[in-house]
Amino acid sequence: MGARSGQDFIDRLAQRHPHVQIDGETLTDGGLHRHPAFAGLARSYAALYDLQAGPERDTLTFASPSSGERVATSFLVPRTYEDLVKRRTAFSTWANYSFGTLGRTGDYLNSGLMALSEASSWFSESNKEFGENLVRYVEKVREEDLLTTHTLIPPQVNRSVAASQQAGGTLAARVVAEDDNGIVVRGARMVATIAPIADEILVFPSTVLRNTPEDEPYSYAFAVPLDAPGLRLIARQPVLHGRGSFDEPLASRFEESDALVIFDDVHVPYERVFVLRDTAICNQFYTRTSATAHMTHQVAARTLAKSEFYLGLLSAMAESIGIGQFGHIQEDLAEVINIVEIQKALIQSAETQAAVNDFGVLTPKWEPLNTSRNWFPKVAQRLPAIVRKFGAGGLMGLPGAEDVFGAAADDVATYLQGKAIDGPDRVRLFKLAFDASISSFAGRQTLYENFFFGDPVRMAGALANSYDRTELTQRVWDFVKRED
Amino acid sequence: MGARSGQDFIDRLAQRHPHVQIDGETLTDGGLHRHPAFAGLARSYAALYDLQAGPERDTLTFASPSSGERVATSFLVPRTYEDLVKRRTAFSTWANYSFGTLGRTGDYLNSGLMALSEASSWFSESNKEFGENLVRYVEKVREEDLLTTHTLIPPQVNRSVAASQQAGGTLAARVVAEDDNGIVVRGARMVATIAPIADEILVFPSTVLRNTPEDEPYSYAFAVPLDAPGLRLIARQPVLHGRGSFDEPLASRFEESDALVIFDDVHVPYERVFVLRDTAICNQFYTRTSATAHMTHQVAARTLAKSEFYLGLLSAMAESIGIGQFGHIQEDLAEVINIVEIQKALIQSAETQAAVNDFGVLTPKWEPLNTSRNWFPKVAQRLPAIVRKFGAGGLMGLPGAEDVFGAAADDVATYLQGKAIDGPDRVRLFKLAFDASISSFAGRQTLYENFFFGDPVRMAGALANSYDRTELTQRVWDFVKRED
Amino acid sequence: MGARSGQDFIDRLAQRHPHVQIDGETLTDGGLHRHPAFAGLARSYAALYDLQAGPERDTLTFASPSSGERVATSFLVPRTYEDLVKRRTAFSTWANYSFGTLGRTGDYLNSGLMALSEASSWFSESNKEFGENLVRYVEKVREEDLLTTHTLIPPQVNRSVAASQQAGGTLAARVVAEDDNGIVVRGARMVATIAPIADEILVFPSTVLRNTPEDEPYSYAFAVPLDAPGLRLIARQPVLHGRGSFDEPLASRFEESDALVIFDDVHVPYERVFVLRDTAICNQFYTRTSATAHMTHQVAARTLAKSEFYLGLLSAMAESIGIGQFGHIQEDLAEVINIVEIQKALIQSAETQAAVNDFGVLTPKWEPLNTSRNWFPKVAQRLPAIVRKFGAGGLMGLPGAEDVFGAAADDVATYLQGKAIDGPDRVRLFKLAFDASISSFAGRQTLYENFFFGDPVRMAGALANSYDRTELTQRVWDFVKRED
Amino acid sequence: MGARSGQDFIDRLAQRHPHVQIDGETLTDGGLHRHPAFAGLARSYAALYDLQAGPERDTLTFASPSSGERVATSFLVPRTYEDLVKRRTAFSTWANYSFGTLGRTGDYLNSGLMALSEASSWFSESNKEFGENLVRYVEKVREEDLLTTHTLIPPQVNRSVAASQQAGGTLAARVVAEDDNGIVVRGARMVATIAPIADEILVFPSTVLRNTPEDEPYSYAFAVPLDAPGLRLIARQPVLHGRGSFDEPLASRFEESDALVIFDDVHVPYERVFVLRDTAICNQFYTRTSATAHMTHQVAARTLAKSEFYLGLLSAMAESIGIGQFGHIQEDLAEVINIVEIQKALIQSAETQAAVNDFGVLTPKWEPLNTSRNWFPKVAQRLPAIVRKFGAGGLMGLPGAEDVFGAAADDVATYLQGKAIDGPDRVRLFKLAFDASISSFAGRQTLYENFFFGDPVRMAGALANSYDRTELTQRVWDFVKRED
Repeated sequence: MGARSGQDFIDRLAQRHPHVQIDGETLTDGGLHRHPAFAGLARSYAALYDLQAGPERDTLTFASPSSGERVATSFLVPRTYEDLVKRRTAFSTWANYSFGTLGRTGDYLNSGLMALSEASSWFSESNKEFGENLVRYVEKVREEDLLTTHTLIPPQVNRSVAASQQAGGTLAARVVAEDDNGIVVRGARMVATIAPIADEILVFPSTVLRNTPEDEPYSYAFAVPLDAPGLRLIARQPVLHGRGSFDEPLASRFEESDALVIFDDVHVPYERVFVLRDTAICNQFYTRTSATAHMTHQVAARTLAKSEFYLGLLSAMAESIGIGQFGHIQEDLAEVINIVEIQKALIQSAETQAAVNDFGVLTPKWEPLNTSRNWFPKVAQRLPAIVRKFGAGGLMGLPGAEDVFGAAADDVATYLQGKAIDGPDRVRLFKLAFDASISSFAGRQTLYENFFFGDPVRMAGALANSYDRTELTQRVWDFVKRED
Repeated sequence: MGARSGQDFIDRLAQRHPHVQIDGETLTDGGLHRHPAFAGLARSYAALYDLQAGPERDTLTFASPSSGERVATSFLVPRTYEDLVKRRTAFSTWANYSFGTLGRTGDYLNSGLMALSEASSWFSESNKEFGENLVRYVEKVREEDLLTTHTLIPPQVNRSVAASQQAGGTLAARVVAEDDNGIVVRGARMVATIAPIADEILVFPSTVLRNTPEDEPYSYAFAVPLDAPGLRLIARQPVLHGRGSFDEPLASRFEESDALVIFDDVHVPYERVFVLRDTAICNQFYTRTSATAHMTHQVAARTLAKSEFYLGLLSAMAESIGIGQFGHIQEDLAEVINIVEIQKALIQSAETQAAVNDFGVLTPKWEPLNTSRNWFPKVAQRLPAIVRKFGAGGLMGLPGAEDVFGAAADDVATYLQGKAIDGPDRVRLFKLAFDASISSFAGRQTLYENFFFGDPVRMAGALANSYDRTELTQRVWDFVKRED
Repeated sequence: MGARSGQDFIDRLAQRHPHVQIDGETLTDGGLHRHPAFAGLARSYAALYDLQAGPERDTLTFASPSSGERVATSFLVPRTYEDLVKRRTAFSTWANYSFGTLGRTGDYLNSGLMALSEASSWFSESNKEFGENLVRYVEKVREEDLLTTHTLIPPQVNRSVAASQQAGGTLAARVVAEDDNGIVVRGARMVATIAPIADEILVFPSTVLRNTPEDEPYSYAFAVPLDAPGLRLIARQPVLHGRGSFDEPLASRFEESDALVIFDDVHVPYERVFVLRDTAICNQFYTRTSATAHMTHQVAARTLAKSEFYLGLLSAMAESIGIGQFGHIQEDLAEVINIVEIQKALIQSAETQAAVNDFGVLTPKWEPLNTSRNWFPKVAQRLPAIVRKFGAGGLMGLPGAEDVFGAAADDVATYLQGKAIDGPDRVRLFKLAFDASISSFAGRQTLYENFFFGDPVRMAGALANSYDRTELTQRVWDFVKRED
Repeated sequence: MGARSGQDFIDRLAQRHPHVQIDGETLTDGGLHRHPAFAGLARSYAALYDLQAGPERDTLTFASPSSGERVATSFLVPRTYEDLVKRRTAFSTWANYSFGTLGRTGDYLNSGLMALSEASSWFSESNKEFGENLVRYVEKVREEDLLTTHTLIPPQVNRSVAASQQAGGTLAARVVAEDDNGIVVRGARMVATIAPIADEILVFPSTVLRNTPEDEPYSYAFAVPLDAPGLRLIARQPVLHGRGSFDEPLASRFEESDALVIFDDVHVPYERVFVLRDTAICNQFYTRTSATAHMTHQVAARTLAKSEFYLGLLSAMAESIGIGQFGHIQEDLAEVINIVEIQKALIQSAETQAAVNDFGVLTPKWEPLNTSRNWFPKVAQRLPAIVRKFGAGGLMGLPGAEDVFGAAADDVATYLQGKAIDGPDRVRLFKLAFDASISSFAGRQTLYENFFFGDPVRMAGALANSYDRTELTQRVWDFVKRED
């Protein structure tokens, strides 16, 4: 069938019946695209799918090597520099739609699946069938344009011990049984974003595993539909409040929902298992296959879109209230310009220095992308702070839509106008700024970026340990011993 | 009548009929303490008033010099160090109730009124009656324990010009007429916090005025009841969402509401006018009278309560998920400990070095308080960031009360437990952390602290210009020219 | 004999014969006050001693309880608030002489010795004689006004193991033998500041010791004269360059010298031993006795003097080149004003809340002082950075004294004048700024402040672990469980 | 003659007789390469020239289009991407020699001269001869491989007024007369780096000029030899102290000298004048010609070399004392890794997106380079701070070479050894760290980077004002008005 339209996405969603717990409701009858907590999000995702058939079709899709149908560009196996640029342009096209606030659009995990599938020979080293399962599964996701999510982290009851030791090993999702047809999984994983509107959930390796019998049941990779029997989602309370797109311009459209995933003896057929009881494969899952590189490529395009959004927003705010000429405002603008340019440069540098990996996939250079994912979480904290600085008291007293266009219309027109902008437009702009810097939605975004790839402290350790500093260190020793 | 009880406060509120526009409703029938946007706040304020009759009565009240009734300590004219300590202990008692999140409790403006009233002779220099008006008015507020708010900033249509130049002078509130009985005021002021539940609004000098005819109509100080004819409030959309105290532990109780105030030809009788067409008095209003010092004394006690709250919250979080032994967590804890200790020291230092002002009022030393109000807005930005760091993914997936105690109770008990804490309590604690670092309520608090006393950049300029650096500069010149 | 004059200090120095290795010279003949590396420093220290007989005599000295002679105020056992103020005023008087750049003036360690001596009963619990030794030794230092230094850190060959494990236990100074008269010490300690011009060196407990036989030889406290047989100093290369006080206004006067101390079987008579083979006493040495509190009291006064110096310097610079009206310059000035005020407040707060310790000594409150010593090392890094910002290119091209007053005099007068200041004075001021922000002297000061009390990361851990957060944490739990 | 050898450079230097005032000496007899203040620097520059004939010859030189001789690559007019890479590789080769600490190696200004010369048609619009002068002059510099420096800033007597207003217009260098053969220049400019060892000085437009008669005399561009009659240099006091390369490993080799330049009626023949009395040309001098882009390309390569140096240095330090496994050390290493990768990415991004300018020169994209030069001055402040953090007490007590290899050799071997490194090598490494973070040389480097392109606050303003934010702003307005 190939790349879906928005309606295709909605139709399929209408047929799924995941078990979702949210705000006092137990939803099991499907149709979640109509539920107020998910409707805005479903519409936004549908709009992204619709883009695949619009003017950007050639960017967003390519001809499937198996079916010949147009399928999503995120599945395009890059062989040339132009392929990488096409992939990134597709990422950016989607990311700009939401100003980078949607973090789990399909292209993110599709990019990982593409890389994993190309590396199927490596999976087959562990078990021939697993490699084949992977290829078949990825083809299915591509051809049906399925929306996947994933879930990584074990419950964090006590951060000072490993997953397998949490509460006597009864918490983290693990393989508790095997039968002729597949495996049985029990336990939980934290934070599956967009799970209520996704088709499939990928349950892939998360934290580092030890090569011990104790860790074996935690060593696996598989995929199941979100409405697999025994699978339950407990969604967090939404950060949207039903106020509509004027009052919650970002949240009403882009609130993605995060859920705790509980596996209550979920049976997974073998054809959907890609790794089993192999800690070595698990620990190298992302790096050996270049999956991380391709996923990070998508993330960098998304966070660039977000940085550009903040630069545009700040520029619009500065104009609207006449503060652009102040020195400290210009310093802040310069800071954000530098963020945008640095992010662009890291992406371009990764692309122009791409190299073919062991599986024939042209892979963006890792070092610039690794820097991007270590650096952006820090600057992401600055962006809303600068918006608050620009907006100041102007962000403090924003009336709601019904007042702006109702009884208070005259007052808004007079007292909330801007320098060269009428009252309602100024309120609109500042509502957007509010939703980008103050609202719960903004708060959740700030948190999300900070921990997108995991704990920044551990990531810094991993970066320092993996980065090859030998030659630079040797230069220093050579100088130290230079005789002259 | 003296210090009110919570019921007194509610009863009076029930009788007022301010004109409030909020979220599509035009409220003119009073009874705002029952409106969902204000009910939680009204209850919290009522609870503060109730404290005045509880075990802390001796701290929170003193015998009125005129009536002999117990009245609020914030009106106690300090003559001794013990008086200052009593005042601050009263501030802290109230501030701790809301963890410092309530920014407009009565003691804030009462402290200013006390100082202004004592300086009435200075007001009388401009107009004998004005000084007397002030004394009478302050006595009324004290004896009736009225809740006042104030509103300072002119509408910010264009920040590069003065208030009197905004949109041809038609925006900022100004005196447009005078008759035998009083003055008529037209125009708007921004951001009156708690206005919908306050008794009175103080309309005092705000930005610096030029000694020109053009600025004269903007030069005044007066007070009116919130339900004065012609006075309209346009309240911002609330940052609480009706989810109850489990889900919004801070917002449900302490969301203060901010409103735009419109004076549609409000008539103010002369007995409530304290300054009129006197720019010199206006520009020295706060400093000459020590009003700022006493108000900042209250603010410092409040922001100390807030700092202590964050330290307690972070400590509880660290315990609950077992992260207290990590070095980077300890660094953050140390940072917050230092914030608490610095704030304590600034307060104590101001108190122990207090001096009697020109009007016989023992006044806390200004320099430490000025540092407190310039320094806290910066560190206030750090506190929620550290909470997010500690909470990490644990703040991402919090289910609502109805799930925690309903269908998801078993899952919550198992998967959301902490290191030494059951599931529901962990969710409770993390909901509080969410409301202190991520929610719209948290976002509004962050903004509010940053701009509490005005634009930090301008405040820094004022601090640099007013601080006496002569002696320290001379020391350097002496050294430069030292011969040895 | 009591408080010394500068001449007394020099005379005694002339008689000592420490073994000092410096810049290719092996000095064993004494007279170090004439050596170019130490002469400027010795003059500055002499000037401090001279102050004891000048107009500040009453502040800097008091009548000895044993001899009745005037002795240094740093030995005054505080019983009243006034005593604490007198002590601090004396600290400040000395600190202001060097703008806080002299870190080892006698009052620092004298303050510790005073506290240790008062706690002699606690030392006697371990060994009756040790307590008595301590009292006698401290009396000697006080009555003879000896200048002591100390040395704490074991050599840092490998920071990941304990002192006793460095290079097989052959590095750190340790007790290797005992005889009837005393102990024999072998090994090294790092960084004894001012050792070449000091009379005595205190070798006190440093890092935490384990209660194991292995750590016993490292568990001691004793004092020896700097010219004890077998004791060798290897002084670091100086950060002064013999250019005179015009070109190196700070370094030429206040470069303190740091030395590695080697104990080549130094014999220490028992009467100078205060702790031996008692790890418990060693680990509580500073806190149990309040020695740290009194030493930190001195340090806080010194770092306040330094902060005030930077504020004066920056003010003079801003005036001299006409930059005081720029917004970003005012922000920096405000930052330094806040540093000065915070430091003042922490000191005053510690003093006004002082309490009598177990040994009858009125001791400044620890928490504000602990914050001061954790907080100042961070802000100390900012101060020179701000000086560089103010000075900019003006710090880049400063000619030397011989040019300024020689062949280039006319050019300097014309081209290096300031806004309201002649060329030579501007160069003088900027030379001072250079020596406070760019020179090796400035660099060493920056390093020194950062590590004055040890590694800031470990200090933060110690602060977090020792600070009582129980009540604040309980407040949060009470709120979490509040029903309303 | 083409690319010079070190000896060529020295020989030419030996023949020049600039008038240099330094540290009490008036030097007019030439031979400055033998003067202790300049000898080390001259040797380093000579070494760079020698590289042009060594194994890197093909990178560092190319065949002159006029003479066919090998000339410096910095004069290669880039037409292809490979040309840009060759240019940058040449920049890096030289920069790595000094770890990026030499800021005025010939390739910096050569890059500007190359671009200016190619844009000669634009200069000819003002005056036909000026364009031709420029081409001839640049050819001369290229073919003779002359070393040029420049000087930009007018004396900063009072930063709040323009150059032409300083001290009644008597300070800044200006044209005071014209005759048949040329112009006469009087006044001063600040900070000509390496002037004492340079062949030529470029006196080019500096600050923005107004199109007024008053500013005309300040509107010019010309070049003169450093020993032109009437030209005097007042060199700042050096930041090297004659201690040799062990003790001052960077300063002894790379201390560049900065000088005040005084034009005492210097006559400049017309053939060396490129702009005269044309404020419009002056104000567009760098941007219109792409000179800034090519100069910044060189600077970015240099600051990358510097960043890499710090990363290598920190890595060597961490290994040598065994601190690499600490979390906070890894965070710092990750920060520096990110700096290196960002700098690399900005350079590559500028190169791969290069475009041909109006004069046919392939020019690196400006935005990434502009970000590099705005961003690096900030991170440059962090690098020495991290070195101090790593080195800690180990940087405090470093003995001099004569001690390390003399009387203290045994003690150094024992007590200053590292984890896997002998004593002298550890001292060597830490001396290098000292010279990169604490010494006057390090301080001057920190200052220099911060102000390399001018005041960072003004640069931020220029960046904000020049960066095209229209499209990003429009995106925000489109979203604000999106109906859905």
